[in-house]
Amino acid sequence: MRTHHCNELRDSDIGQTVTLIGWVNSARDHGGVIFIDLRDREGLTQCVFRPEESPTIAQLSHTLREEDVVQVVGLVSKRLAGSENPKMATGAIEIVAKELKIVNKAEVLPFQLDKELSNEDLRMKYRYLDLRRARMSKNIRQRAIITSAARRYLDESGFFEVETPILSNPTPEGARDFLVPSRLNPGRFYALPQAPQQYKQLMMVAGLEKYYQIARCFRDEDLRADRQPEFTQIDIEASFVGQEDIIKLVEGLLASMFKAGLGIDVPTPFPRMTYREAEDIYGSDKPDTRYDMKITDLAEVFSSTEFKIFRSTLDNGGVVRAINAKGYAGVTTGQMNRLNEIAIQAGLPVKTLAFVKYENGEFKSPLWKFFTDAEKDALVSTLTIEEGDIVFFVAGKRESVSTILGRVRVEIAEMMDLVKDSTAYNFLWVVDFPLLAQDEETGDWVAVHHPFTRPNPDDLEKLKSGDYANVRAVAYDVVLNGYELGGGSIRIHEKDLQSTMFSALGIDAEEQQIKFGHLLDAFRFGAPPHGGLALGLDRIAMLIAGEDSIREVIAFPKNNKGADLMAQSPCQIDFKLLREVYVQSTWKDPKLAAEKSTQA
Amino acid sequence: MRTHHCNELRDSDIGQTVTLIGWVNSARDHGGVIFIDLRDREGLTQCVFRPEESPTIAQLSHTLREEDVVQVVGLVSKRLAGSENPKMATGAIEIVAKELKIVNKAEVLPFQLDKELSNEDLRMKYRYLDLRRARMSKNIRQRAIITSAARRYLDESGFFEVETPILSNPTPEGARDFLVPSRLNPGRFYALPQAPQQYKQLMMVAGLEKYYQIARCFRDEDLRADRQPEFTQIDIEASFVGQEDIIKLVEGLLASMFKAGLGIDVPTPFPRMTYREAEDIYGSDKPDTRYDMKITDLAEVFSSTEFKIFRSTLDNGGVVRAINAKGYAGVTTGQMNRLNEIAIQAGLPVKTLAFVKYENGEFKSPLWKFFTDAEKDALVSTLTIEEGDIVFFVAGKRESVSTILGRVRVEIAEMMDLVKDSTAYNFLWVVDFPLLAQDEETGDWVAVHHPFTRPNPDDLEKLKSGDYANVRAVAYDVVLNGYELGGGSIRIHEKDLQSTMFSALGIDAEEQQIKFGHLLDAFRFGAPPHGGLALGLDRIAMLIAGEDSIREVIAFPKNNKGADLMAQSPCQIDFKLLREVYVQSTWKDPKLAAEKSTQA
Repeated sequence: MRTHHCNELRDSDIGQTVTLIGWVNSARDHGGVIFIDLRDREGLTQCVFRPEESPTIAQLSHTLREEDVVQVVGLVSKRLAGSENPKMATGAIEIVAKELKIVNKAEVLPFQLDKELSNEDLRMKYRYLDLRRARMSKNIRQRAIITSAARRYLDESGFFEVETPILSNPTPEGARDFLVPSRLNPGRFYALPQAPQQYKQLMMVAGLEKYYQIARCFRDEDLRADRQPEFTQIDIEASFVGQEDIIKLVEGLLASMFKAGLGIDVPTPFPRMTYREAEDIYGSDKPDTRYDMKITDLAEVFSSTEFKIFRSTLDNGGVVRAINAKGYAGVTTGQMNRLNEIAIQAGLPVKTLAFVKYENGEFKSPLWKFFTDAEKDALVSTLTIEEGDIVFFVAGKRESVSTILGRVRVEIAEMMDLVKDSTAYNFLWVVDFPLLAQDEETGDWVAVHHPFTRPNPDDLEKLKSGDYANVRAVAYDVVLNGYELGGGSIRIHEKDLQSTMFSALGIDAEEQQIKFGHLLDAFRFGAPPHGGLALGLDRIAMLIAGEDSIREVIAFPKNNKGADLMAQSPCQIDFKLLREVYVQSTWKDPKLAAEKSTQA
Repeated sequence: MRTHHCNELRDSDIGQTVTLIGWVNSARDHGGVIFIDLRDREGLTQCVFRPEESPTIAQLSHTLREEDVVQVVGLVSKRLAGSENPKMATGAIEIVAKELKIVNKAEVLPFQLDKELSNEDLRMKYRYLDLRRARMSKNIRQRAIITSAARRYLDESGFFEVETPILSNPTPEGARDFLVPSRLNPGRFYALPQAPQQYKQLMMVAGLEKYYQIARCFRDEDLRADRQPEFTQIDIEASFVGQEDIIKLVEGLLASMFKAGLGIDVPTPFPRMTYREAEDIYGSDKPDTRYDMKITDLAEVFSSTEFKIFRSTLDNGGVVRAINAKGYAGVTTGQMNRLNEIAIQAGLPVKTLAFVKYENGEFKSPLWKFFTDAEKDALVSTLTIEEGDIVFFVAGKRESVSTILGRVRVEIAEMMDLVKDSTAYNFLWVVDFPLLAQDEETGDWVAVHHPFTRPNPDDLEKLKSGDYANVRAVAYDVVLNGYELGGGSIRIHEKDLQSTMFSALGIDAEEQQIKFGHLLDAFRFGAPPHGGLALGLDRIAMLIAGEDSIREVIAFPKNNKGADLMAQSPCQIDFKLLREVYVQSTWKDPKLAAEKSTQA
């Protein structure tokens, strides 16, 4: 239906007769002659319908409207001097049309394609039009290109892609599962996988040695923030490897994806930081290192302080820490309120953040008077406080102080637009995660990554003796500009160690057998040492596309109620169909119920 | 953990010290010295533990059992003259071990890996061991290789892979859907997609032009025959294309997959046949053309017959047709019974197939006496009946006769082992499918492919006038050796034509809007002409692997009850979790019910 696409014809093609097909991107009437920009996937070409060429098609061309699908046969011609468009790849030429076929007329669109649309619902309802925009079209194609690059890299590294079941089993110790009633097994349910974790480990037991999958995963969570009920991860597992092997592989993988997507060379190896360092210095296990504003410990500065709050905090094993927001002394009251809110949400037990401002050569602070001159001097030099700076203090338990200052740090960076025009891609490995963490409410120990994560061999005794807080995992996260791109670990491959781990999580022998029997069984028959990692493809695609939401890199996303407004999914299902799979809905529509009760 | 894999070391490596890691494939004691074949993903290497090298490890080597995971450090050495194994790639050398580390001991396996196992349940329960067998390991890897080749081919052809939702909508007019209750949308359900049909068409409306996806699809069908509740298709859609474009693309795609999987060059273009021809000549829309045994029409032979059954059939617009099973006159009574059974299942209204045998120079047939000499002569020459042949006749309606003879043909081919040692790959396009077919029971017209298939432009008037039986579709199937590999069509892209098609299927305007509103809407805004195809990846992988079941090329398949015996999926779910998604099970366990009633 075409001889060329719409981004192909150049000066050198002048004189050729060509056939193009695509959408009318725009139509203009210049003194009775219609000019259109014809658009296809690749670009735009100007076509002109001159009455002297063909009165019939010139007349027909007056009926053209935006988004009509048309086929044009015509002569590639030089544009009139002065009417070239250097911004357009095909801007030197135009097609003087000899034939015009209106393939499919378009009605007026519900919104314009060349303007940004803030009505998300409308975008989602007409997603097939939203995806016509240049930006969205680029995003979807760029995602395909980086995914393809990832596959190529893994193929070339000796990995085999293997598909694992979507009709799977609940994830014990995981988030909430999506459930699928089984018709052939009445009363039973499949669960959609939160990750192919056990399948990939079992493939290692099977001897595949190097597996990957661009795997669809599912979590039935409340969709606050930028989450989707289904998402895609690059799932990797290998046998006979250690942490260094996985890190090297993934650095190469990410580099290949960024090269394919953006044409940039990501320097490797990435910097590394322990979890402890990340928390202490940035108050986050996924620090954005594009800006500094590090958390500084003030134990030395205040070692002899008589300021009560600091004194008692330090005496009780707590910490006093601060960040210096350089040049931010002009913070507004509104911003300050916002920072206080953030800090309180993050756990600050008082209503305002303590601060010291240095403005016009003066220190301003409700605290200043409590510090000795020596403390003041030490503070200024430790935090290199200069004119225009503002320092925020938090005193309290180490973890809590980190979290609060970490959140405040991120918020200030946003308020100050510190990374607005940054083109930096600050990759980072965070290593030496703790194996277990204690649930604050229940006091139970839970796995920080998952129950299959290998304890650091140096900490095995601590695990066995119950000193859970100090057991490190052989687990690693890869972070980019404050986003966690993915994480992984070396796994347990021994039945006994796996049982010990389950016991630490409060899973007794019987429950272990019920929930994890096949994995424990598998470890009895020659399981190799193995480990892996999973990367969030949606998020990587989002960062490469320069978008703020993964919805912008998913062709047909759900909204924050888990609904697809275009396809009207999820939908109501006839009760007879439900009966066939042995379930019934327990939902009473409040409206219907109200009606019925009125009738009654 | 290794310097080489187990299929790497050769003569030229002799003298090197290497480290290997893998599984003990076999262990042999030769006069007190232990020899093992060490196995990894790539192959086998013999290791020997000589006491003179290290008494400690020689002693340790006596504890080695099959499937232990071990790491061996040793010297690559020439095998003793006469003990080379030319069948083994590494058969010239052996590793004289200096170090041995038992990485993970294996218990005795539930079955032996080097023997075929007929107990499917046991294979499935221990799938991670079943996958260790050379054959299964090859299958899984070969599937990855051909999938990767398919992706590469499509990438290079300008197609972009786009992921479509798994949490999707019911497929109207399709098979039974798997349903997923929604927690965030009480009383509503997602359905798992039977195919991404509408999404891929909407991507064409979005202007993507060339889309593909290796897509997981789901059908909740009874799992007779070789079906899986989830399966994978290579899903393709393109804009501004016709049937020829898709056919050419897919020929190249399949050729690239067979080249990658088997190293063979598949000749293209593939032969073509109309649906009508395929049904008339082979009695099937997916004929196996590796053997002949064509269905022959005998209208001319019996044009003046006075044999009552044939006479009345022909006079009533029916057909008399036959196949000649060459050299099969020696068919046993058992085989004959089986053929009669097959024919009856396929719709034969009498109890036995009519036949003529030519054995020892004599024609044997219950019918022979009813034929004139001229008819006999014509029959013999039309069907080239020779010594040892047997001819089967069916008289009746054209479609029914085709179906019966088609099934009998396939069964005879199997009984005669006609394709047992065949290495032929007979690809074939079947084109010009009918658009609609009438349900025999209800009399309703149903779509032969699906409701989005484009009618042949020459038959549009017939569609509009209700002459549904004679409307051809622009639809095509690709067939290999009697298996349908996939099928596709050019689609309808006009709202009005789509409505006409829905109406033919008995879907009124209101129902059209409810079920297909978003597609009909999309067609209003400049939908391009488009079409595509979907290939069954499981089946292609099966045929390339030379397997009889798709289960052999799926890492973790379900059994014929839709269950995964390894992961114990599907499983029971606590009613509280069900309540969270607003459903309850209606299944009363008969055992429990019995107990309760006893108690009562």
